[in-house]
Amino acid sequence: MKQDVVDARISPAGHLAVLSKTEVNKLLDTSQGGLYRLLHNCSLAVLNCGNYMDDGKELLERYKSFEIRVLQEERGIKLEVKGAPATAFVDGHMIKGIKEHLFAVLRDIIYVSDEINDNPKFDLQSSEGVTNSVFHILRNANILKAGKLPQLVVCWGGHSISREEYDYSKVVGYQMGLRGLDICTGCGPGAMKGPMKGATIGHAKQRIGTGHYIGITEPGIIAAEAPNPIVNDLVIMPDIEKRLEAFVRAGHGIVVFPGGVGTAEEILYLLGILLHPDNKDISFPLIFTGPAGSEEYFKQINRFIGETLGLAAQQRYKIIIDDPARVARDMKEGMQRVREFRQQREDAYYFNWGLKISPDFQQPFNPTHENMAALKLHKDQESHLLAANLRRVFSGIVSGNVKDDGIRAIEQHGHFEIKGDAEIMGPVDELLSAFVKQQRMKLPGKTYKPCYRIVK
Amino acid sequence: MKQDVVDARISPAGHLAVLSKTEVNKLLDTSQGGLYRLLHNCSLAVLNCGNYMDDGKELLERYKSFEIRVLQEERGIKLEVKGAPATAFVDGHMIKGIKEHLFAVLRDIIYVSDEINDNPKFDLQSSEGVTNSVFHILRNANILKAGKLPQLVVCWGGHSISREEYDYSKVVGYQMGLRGLDICTGCGPGAMKGPMKGATIGHAKQRIGTGHYIGITEPGIIAAEAPNPIVNDLVIMPDIEKRLEAFVRAGHGIVVFPGGVGTAEEILYLLGILLHPDNKDISFPLIFTGPAGSEEYFKQINRFIGETLGLAAQQRYKIIIDDPARVARDMKEGMQRVREFRQQREDAYYFNWGLKISPDFQQPFNPTHENMAALKLHKDQESHLLAANLRRVFSGIVSGNVKDDGIRAIEQHGHFEIKGDAEIMGPVDELLSAFVKQQRMKLPGKTYKPCYRIVK
Amino acid sequence: MKQDVVDARISPAGHLAVLSKTEVNKLLDTSQGGLYRLLHNCSLAVLNCGNYMDDGKELLERYKSFEIRVLQEERGIKLEVKGAPATAFVDGHMIKGIKEHLFAVLRDIIYVSDEINDNPKFDLQSSEGVTNSVFHILRNANILKAGKLPQLVVCWGGHSISREEYDYSKVVGYQMGLRGLDICTGCGPGAMKGPMKGATIGHAKQRIGTGHYIGITEPGIIAAEAPNPIVNDLVIMPDIEKRLEAFVRAGHGIVVFPGGVGTAEEILYLLGILLHPDNKDISFPLIFTGPAGSEEYFKQINRFIGETLGLAAQQRYKIIIDDPARVARDMKEGMQRVREFRQQREDAYYFNWGLKISPDFQQPFNPTHENMAALKLHKDQESHLLAANLRRVFSGIVSGNVKDDGIRAIEQHGHFEIKGDAEIMGPVDELLSAFVKQQRMKLPGKTYKPCYRIVK
Amino acid sequence: MKQDVVDARISPAGHLAVLSKTEVNKLLDTSQGGLYRLLHNCSLAVLNCGNYMDDGKELLERYKSFEIRVLQEERGIKLEVKGAPATAFVDGHMIKGIKEHLFAVLRDIIYVSDEINDNPKFDLQSSEGVTNSVFHILRNANILKAGKLPQLVVCWGGHSISREEYDYSKVVGYQMGLRGLDICTGCGPGAMKGPMKGATIGHAKQRIGTGHYIGITEPGIIAAEAPNPIVNDLVIMPDIEKRLEAFVRAGHGIVVFPGGVGTAEEILYLLGILLHPDNKDISFPLIFTGPAGSEEYFKQINRFIGETLGLAAQQRYKIIIDDPARVARDMKEGMQRVREFRQQREDAYYFNWGLKISPDFQQPFNPTHENMAALKLHKDQESHLLAANLRRVFSGIVSGNVKDDGIRAIEQHGHFEIKGDAEIMGPVDELLSAFVKQQRMKLPGKTYKPCYRIVK
Repeated sequence: MKQDVVDARISPAGHLAVLSKTEVNKLLDTSQGGLYRLLHNCSLAVLNCGNYMDDGKELLERYKSFEIRVLQEERGIKLEVKGAPATAFVDGHMIKGIKEHLFAVLRDIIYVSDEINDNPKFDLQSSEGVTNSVFHILRNANILKAGKLPQLVVCWGGHSISREEYDYSKVVGYQMGLRGLDICTGCGPGAMKGPMKGATIGHAKQRIGTGHYIGITEPGIIAAEAPNPIVNDLVIMPDIEKRLEAFVRAGHGIVVFPGGVGTAEEILYLLGILLHPDNKDISFPLIFTGPAGSEEYFKQINRFIGETLGLAAQQRYKIIIDDPARVARDMKEGMQRVREFRQQREDAYYFNWGLKISPDFQQPFNPTHENMAALKLHKDQESHLLAANLRRVFSGIVSGNVKDDGIRAIEQHGHFEIKGDAEIMGPVDELLSAFVKQQRMKLPGKTYKPCYRIVK
Repeated sequence: MKQDVVDARISPAGHLAVLSKTEVNKLLDTSQGGLYRLLHNCSLAVLNCGNYMDDGKELLERYKSFEIRVLQEERGIKLEVKGAPATAFVDGHMIKGIKEHLFAVLRDIIYVSDEINDNPKFDLQSSEGVTNSVFHILRNANILKAGKLPQLVVCWGGHSISREEYDYSKVVGYQMGLRGLDICTGCGPGAMKGPMKGATIGHAKQRIGTGHYIGITEPGIIAAEAPNPIVNDLVIMPDIEKRLEAFVRAGHGIVVFPGGVGTAEEILYLLGILLHPDNKDISFPLIFTGPAGSEEYFKQINRFIGETLGLAAQQRYKIIIDDPARVARDMKEGMQRVREFRQQREDAYYFNWGLKISPDFQQPFNPTHENMAALKLHKDQESHLLAANLRRVFSGIVSGNVKDDGIRAIEQHGHFEIKGDAEIMGPVDELLSAFVKQQRMKLPGKTYKPCYRIVK
Repeated sequence: MKQDVVDARISPAGHLAVLSKTEVNKLLDTSQGGLYRLLHNCSLAVLNCGNYMDDGKELLERYKSFEIRVLQEERGIKLEVKGAPATAFVDGHMIKGIKEHLFAVLRDIIYVSDEINDNPKFDLQSSEGVTNSVFHILRNANILKAGKLPQLVVCWGGHSISREEYDYSKVVGYQMGLRGLDICTGCGPGAMKGPMKGATIGHAKQRIGTGHYIGITEPGIIAAEAPNPIVNDLVIMPDIEKRLEAFVRAGHGIVVFPGGVGTAEEILYLLGILLHPDNKDISFPLIFTGPAGSEEYFKQINRFIGETLGLAAQQRYKIIIDDPARVARDMKEGMQRVREFRQQREDAYYFNWGLKISPDFQQPFNPTHENMAALKLHKDQESHLLAANLRRVFSGIVSGNVKDDGIRAIEQHGHFEIKGDAEIMGPVDELLSAFVKQQRMKLPGKTYKPCYRIVK
Repeated sequence: MKQDVVDARISPAGHLAVLSKTEVNKLLDTSQGGLYRLLHNCSLAVLNCGNYMDDGKELLERYKSFEIRVLQEERGIKLEVKGAPATAFVDGHMIKGIKEHLFAVLRDIIYVSDEINDNPKFDLQSSEGVTNSVFHILRNANILKAGKLPQLVVCWGGHSISREEYDYSKVVGYQMGLRGLDICTGCGPGAMKGPMKGATIGHAKQRIGTGHYIGITEPGIIAAEAPNPIVNDLVIMPDIEKRLEAFVRAGHGIVVFPGGVGTAEEILYLLGILLHPDNKDISFPLIFTGPAGSEEYFKQINRFIGETLGLAAQQRYKIIIDDPARVARDMKEGMQRVREFRQQREDAYYFNWGLKISPDFQQPFNPTHENMAALKLHKDQESHLLAANLRRVFSGIVSGNVKDDGIRAIEQHGHFEIKGDAEIMGPVDELLSAFVKQQRMKLPGKTYKPCYRIVK
């Protein structure tokens, strides 16, 4: 299929329009050590917004002729794109939100390369070093605002959900917007777009011109979950673990909408952290919600959590079915509790330093066939460790489903094999089968070809 | 039915927070010459937004205990409301957009009373005087912005339309928002709300923080078409004729969505003006549009216009079915033509002084049974005069359907009788019957009881 | 002497850029009922800022070829000036502050003509009517800001003062600016410019970007006291009495610097009001201040007040010599008392409704030879009435010194004769003689030719 | 003498209010590797603004009890100061401009420590590395604004000048402000304060709310040249060489007012750069100016330059005596030439990449007695190298006069000895003697004790 493409020269909007000669050269450098490839792929993903597809490989193949170049001019930096998806343009002009995203990509790629990687100030092998780097990247992206009260709600959920679920997520966003709450998501379609759209209307009615719609992504996922242009603060974290840490350190509460494996991964990540003994007292509002038709889905999740991680894990969230105003009201009250909690501890509102995140959740998990097969999936470990391992299961499946590398690995080596005790593997199998049946594994209309095999 | 109501004290947001003692007293004055009754009814309508109902009488009866009082305090004026509809509030706080509307009501009521009525500078019997008063009211409401290019699109259409039509109007608004166009409507639900909602999303994606959503209403219609809170500039004109004149003088182009009698009235008003010989050359983009399912509706309207006003009238508009991007693109191009036209004539962009509006369209038409029966409905007159009379037919029916006075008159004296030549009355009858059949006369779910009788 | 003049076309900056055709025509109308003459003279005065001269007659003769025209264009109103003083321009571009003043002139002339004069809503013969008109003119000029705390300090004093006094007034302004106080003056040179200049630096250091520098003038005085361009809110009141009322109703406290007859007039006006029995309890901070070298001047004023109006009058002010920080601190504390006083009474901060101003101070005093001779200058009347009459003496002398009409009257009929009881006329004579001796009657370098004769 | 001191807790205004725990700890760390000492000394200098003194040693001794601490609170970072100079406060509240400066100090100290020092990305031994670090520090301080036209005028000159010279520098600043030019200085008193004060008034009259007043300093000089609070963008460069490079890379033209050795150092630095063969064609407006009374001073400088560096050096500047408007107009025209020059070369406006600065001007010169004695002061070298060495002479003398280290070295080892060829040393001696005679070596009222001895 021939794609509609456009060539254009883009002036910056908002972000980092001032680069040094060294930085420009790095961005033009197509060699191994250069940044061109990263800039190219992330920019293409940003430009492709609206045309959702399941994997980055498909995207790169579709827009083979796409090129991007940084130009130094007298008034600052410009970007030149060739062969860019036409949908990023309206009557020949690039949508301004997308422009901003392009320059956010530039900003974060440069910053991570210049100031984080190889800078001896950041020991990325230590837990403190990782947290520090997350802090610096978010601060450089101007996400951390001193003086602002807790009001940032992270919304998680599938990018491929039903119309009913999508409409419901919009109403929840609308009710949160009416209450002055800001939204942070993984910035793709579905449950990541609905709440922002709704909040935009809620903020407009409340004349909140400064509504904050934060999208946090990473190079490996951005192609499958292109930021929608409502996102007015986009940040590209270097990898999936720092992305997840960014969510829980910058956000003040989390709403989970229905989704698939990605959502399950996020839930397990979060529960794994909250179950850490050091986080016992920490205030962290967490709500699972969906329309009437999604009740079954959350019952399943709840059962799975009960069977694997137990009652303590179930105590950390609340399930609200079909009541958007109550979700928003509860979240608003939760913000108040977060505020009091941090005031008592003199903790910053803008970054949750108090949350203990153990290295298991910070170090990249490389879902090779070997690593997937070696996961410890039994109850003979502390529940937050089990949660960490369960998360890796789902993380690997997400990779095999939608990520460029993962897809290639599956094509080459066949299914991931996932082994463990029956009392764990049973519920896992049940949950995954339900996801497949409910078409929660891929965009609708495609048949899902599993990338894994459960070995009980 | 018992209504949920709230008592509250409201600080101003934006508008006129500074009143003289004389002005405060007038607003508290419940006597004939006082302004209390007007303030009370308009404020109640504003507060009732979201709970759409068909007539003002019903509204007043439902919230019998509603009271409003202006308070003078050290930091300025406050408003005290008692028995206000609970839907105007979120967790006990009034939605800010609604607050602004309350103070806009105050501003316009005071201004018209102080500076327009009985001020010898405005001769409201002359055409110039009426136009001048429209100009002054709009200027005082800060609607007329010098220096701004033509970009205000008036959207007309029914407040009671199908889901499909409503969704379509949102997409048209979205496409116009993406192109930087502003929206002006009669500010109720349906086709008056959809385009604003869509444009809000479009503006957000283009980072247009200053998107302008103008609502123009008048005391007689506001109860049935409560302004939705997205409207960020509300103006209350003194009567229906000045409201219509405000639309055509402040707007730069008009999009008409499907509707019922009100929409037909608006179309006839506009065509009556555009058919005036003095307006022959004037640039005024006019598009009728709807989703695929509304094609029949516009065919009917087009046929009615052809049969009554002829081909010249049909030349003034374009019908676009099921193509929102094209509507927006055509409107954008139309704005460019308006710009060139006014530049040539050194006419203001912000007020269409060049448009000739004959007194027939400016003087209030009082739809008494006698006046309705006396309308001249034959072809033996210039077509813009016939259009004026046809408009009065529909104006009377709107009054009989939804306005407080009109409903009482019908209750007392029975049907309006409408008489005229068969070649006119035929198409009129046909059109009205179609409206009834398509449930375009009242909110869905109610059976329409006609307030008129065609006498051929 | 040939003057440097410039022709230019000016786009509006800020104010009223939107006029109706009727308004434009009135402004172009050079007949008796038209507004051209007023617009011409006020505009010329505004453009002449920096080149101070003593009277309006001199100004008109110097720039005989000056013309101004209002143009209607597609983006709004423009002004065309011909033969304008070159000092209003920098390298051919009009200074933006002066542009704003030109459009403020336009705004106020139009508003007073359209909405105040001949509008039956304002009975300018009644005290309430006058106060109401002052309120409306200030509100229309956007001077009255709801929600702002009391912080507007009116600075009075001579436009022709010594370098030492001028520098002192700058430091007082600087100290007030550091404390976040805003400045309001009669907007000419000398003591009316110094405090604004100082406050500008104080505000800059405190990062107060919204420092308010209000100038209140009127057509008769504007030529002699052209607004300096720092003034960022200029309002042209219709006459001297409404100007004075604007000062005391909008300002929250007053600082009086050394001056001449004009300053004495202002002091008497203010004391006359504060001595009214109804104002006994009202909070109104009033400070007379100057550098060490001005001590004698204030001793004289204090003695004159003691001898004519008595101890009660002396209780209403404080004299502070050579201590700018103390002036500012006392004024800041005074603002706090004003705040508490108005809170108790639920009086507006932005307009001093509670101050009783008797009609003696509101009705224009026409200083004809006859009226000047008939003034009642004896102690056999309440002290606030005596203050009113003393004020008229000084008002007449100001007119004879610097106003176009007054100068012509003196040229034609000779000196004003001023008669009264010796115990009043003695101090009056003494004070005026001291003013002449200290060169406080005219700009330095000119010999003062008295326009009055004391008849004891 | 007992100093007035204040204890206070300061909330951030504007800059970097978000710090990581690691950063806070470094700032509290009083050990060798910690940043406390640097933070303490620079903060004290900032707080001491207005109380000018000649050296940092004196300052530290005067405020021995001064302490500063960074606090982490829920809304962000606060600063706690103890024993701070009372002049930084107005009625107990710190002046906001000074608050901003404190947080700018924090920002730059942290940034240089985190991201520049020891970061392998910056090779501070290479010329490119130094320039790159200057770029990064300025960018991080938000000094480099893309999209802005060339309009930043660097003003150099003495901090200890006569009243006449100071007033003159204010008028030059005023005339530049009227023309929309921004000001950048070394941010102390005298010729570094006057132009900003004047420009503030000029900008106020032109309603330029965004007037930019940049101060560039470094830890060694800040005590003697405390930033005045008008400076609204303060940046602390790590050393004197990077500070000078920042001036010439960020500024678009330079005005030099009368001064002493520091000014001579700056002139030689600049001429040394402009004389580099690679910079032959570069556009760089440079004006020396002063009031009538300073004519002799500039004649002397001009003669010295002619005798040592020759005619080519004299061609790079223009001397304008007693004509502020002409200085401003010439500078404005110069900006236009800079603009055209950079457009042709597609060079950035915000950073003068095209200017060649040889390592002689970039590497810190450590003015030990040994290094001072070893300077090559003869004509047998290229003129830009001679300029570099002459600059070092004056740099050393500045250090011996006012810098903490330099003063201690002189106390310990006696005079610097400066040797060279007679044809160089003659003019040097003559110039320095004139500076001493004209009291241009120290603040007036103190007797100057030379820190050097010329050995011909």
